[in-house]
Amino acid sequence: MTKLGLLCSIGSGLGGRCCSISFSTRGFQTTSFSAAASSAKMSTEFYTFGPYKIDPKEVFFSTPLSYAMVNLRPVVPGHVLVCPRREVKRFVDLTVEETQDLWLTAQRIGGGIERFHKASSLTFTIQDGPKAGQTVAHAHVHILPRKDGDFENNDEIYDAIDAKEKELKGKLDLDKERKDRSMEEMCKEAEEYRSLFVLP
Amino acid sequence: MTKLGLLCSIGSGLGGRCCSISFSTRGFQTTSFSAAASSAKMSTEFYTFGPYKIDPKEVFFSTPLSYAMVNLRPVVPGHVLVCPRREVKRFVDLTVEETQDLWLTAQRIGGGIERFHKASSLTFTIQDGPKAGQTVAHAHVHILPRKDGDFENNDEIYDAIDAKEKELKGKLDLDKERKDRSMEEMCKEAEEYRSLFVLP
Repeated sequence: MTKLGLLCSIGSGLGGRCCSISFSTRGFQTTSFSAAASSAKMSTEFYTFGPYKIDPKEVFFSTPLSYAMVNLRPVVPGHVLVCPRREVKRFVDLTVEETQDLWLTAQRIGGGIERFHKASSLTFTIQDGPKAGQTVAHAHVHILPRKDGDFENNDEIYDAIDAKEKELKGKLDLDKERKDRSMEEMCKEAEEYRSLFVLP
Repeated sequence: MTKLGLLCSIGSGLGGRCCSISFSTRGFQTTSFSAAASSAKMSTEFYTFGPYKIDPKEVFFSTPLSYAMVNLRPVVPGHVLVCPRREVKRFVDLTVEETQDLWLTAQRIGGGIERFHKASSLTFTIQDGPKAGQTVAHAHVHILPRKDGDFENNDEIYDAIDAKEKELKGKLDLDKERKDRSMEEMCKEAEEYRSLFVLP
């Protein structure tokens, strides 16, 4: 087991309901991020993250190619994930359009999450492949808002991540039911974030 | 001082010469990465990295918006940096075109460097802001090829990075002459990498 593995939120399948539903589809655009308009409202569609089905209540931002979701066990407040909709194992497997959209999404999400949490920096990381700590074989970007003193030393964040990873790994392997954060808590967080990314 | 800070290569100003010079310019394209053709040949132009001037001998790949360079003190073989040409402090400060180009470049470089080093995974990281370990205020992507057993535990890579960071930080602050890896060694590495990214 790798020691560093940023925790990945996966669909819990719990039935908590706390978000209004608004489904919208938009045209597929590949050359303009603004044209490939994002949906800040919650969709009824499901998302997949490797072998897991993600409840749309956990998703707070999406484009035709990417989506952003809250984390089951964030290591700092606001630790979220940005994923391509299409399941690919490695970052290099993404198309040009997916790569562009993934990182424009991550950039936008990072800016909003940093302001929301009154942070002053961000850590962006892709653990691209199992030898880099990836546990869910679906390429994804970790975004972590960083503040002065959030960890006494910057790399302690990885120890914290590791501790959570150790807890989670068996659950991922065994696909056991997880308790972790409640669906209600995750939904509430996603709802807060969703309001940050409402289209003009 | 933050404990985690991936080491950044900066121009050394040494006069080693071991690369042939071929300067090429290409049209500026923003919507197509292939159209914004990259230069795998070494350019005579200079690059900046925060307050530092980067010798083109350290650069092994460039586009009109981004460039890739070898690292003064890599923590694993093939640890390289991809930077936007324009100096911006934070990732969010990049334009849409710069963001797209930066990550398409990082994707391409990661694939080539991973194959070259016979690695099986990659770590991509942006330390975006001083509280995330950024020491040079010029947004950049770290790419680290990862192999089975390169570190007993995955997060030990950050301890290694930290040790190097501690050594470097004062030098960055004081802008002292650095010895570190020789310019010849860095040039040789850049030359090897340059050959990986020759345009068809």
